[in-house]
Amino acid sequence: MPHIDLPGDYPGIRSLFMFSPVTALPLNNLVQTLLHDTETSTLTPGERELIATYTSSLNNCKYCANTHGAIAKYQLNGNADVVQHILQQDVEGASISDKMKALLNVAAKVQLSGKSVTAADIARSKKEGATDKEIHDTVLIAAAFCMFNRYVDGLATWAPEDDSVYDSIGKQRASEGYMTKPFIVKQTS
Amino acid sequence: MPHIDLPGDYPGIRSLFMFSPVTALPLNNLVQTLLHDTETSTLTPGERELIATYTSSLNNCKYCANTHGAIAKYQLNGNADVVQHILQQDVEGASISDKMKALLNVAAKVQLSGKSVTAADIARSKKEGATDKEIHDTVLIAAAFCMFNRYVDGLATWAPEDDSVYDSIGKQRASEGYMTKPFIVKQTS
Repeated sequence: MPHIDLPGDYPGIRSLFMFSPVTALPLNNLVQTLLHDTETSTLTPGERELIATYTSSLNNCKYCANTHGAIAKYQLNGNADVVQHILQQDVEGASISDKMKALLNVAAKVQLSGKSVTAADIARSKKEGATDKEIHDTVLIAAAFCMFNRYVDGLATWAPEDDSVYDSIGKQRASEGYMTKPFIVKQTS
Repeated sequence: MPHIDLPGDYPGIRSLFMFSPVTALPLNNLVQTLLHDTETSTLTPGERELIATYTSSLNNCKYCANTHGAIAKYQLNGNADVVQHILQQDVEGASISDKMKALLNVAAKVQLSGKSVTAADIARSKKEGATDKEIHDTVLIAAAFCMFNRYVDGLATWAPEDDSVYDSIGKQRASEGYMTKPFIVKQTS
């Protein structure tokens, strides 16, 4: 049961967005910029969703891991196998680039703490072709999901058991991004 | 030395905002909403800055703890004694309300992980008069600083040694909020 009185019809972070619209808008602006917009990063939306999925899995946040795993699947043209490996925290076994493996290693360090990221972690990423901006984006996305995961679980929101719920959210968000209904309306100014 | 090539004239998160303006804007919109705007929370800006300071201290993030400690001091009419207790993680010894002590206890649980927050932590906060929205705001602010702290330290940004630097930033942010120069320009639309 949630720690505070949340709208019962909405799962996970959606219930928090309904409870507090004033904070929902900047949070969704942020995630839209970090994960969905194509002009903000040279990592693809699918790659960025995998970083969000992996961090959420490491934080044991069921709602966020399953939701972003589903979004990642749609952003990766239905590649459920890669998503399953990431949800199971098997980065080395996933069919992804060596650059992505190095960046997910950085994300795992960020999940522990900022100071856990070492010069060797960064050197490995650069050796595999990651730019400074891609390393920056990876650190920020992993850090952001250390926020979203704590927000969702710190207030004990409801995580659906039914996989089809996550698949439905994933399909919508991969297509529309993060600034649309039901839980938030598009900015008009 | 920072892990990526950051503008050398700017410390901490300011160097990251200069490096990546596209992510600086939504991050500053978020922190403005969470900490500075008065219509977004019934916790005062000073109380919200204390939550940010305490979380940053628990995460051992020198730049964020000292910066938000300085902002908190200015938001609390110069009460440096309270800020020192919070920076030293001595919540019970600080001259703050029992409600704030209960909410800072919640923030400390969020710093560990979302799932560390217990029904007893929430019950204590409600007993001391915290509303659902104030509990929500506390969880979200503590979660957000688990992001900001990881962003700042995960890229190994530079934290000044000189206390007067933090005091200067604190005075500016307490007065102007988070949407002004040098590192970001006010939104015009």
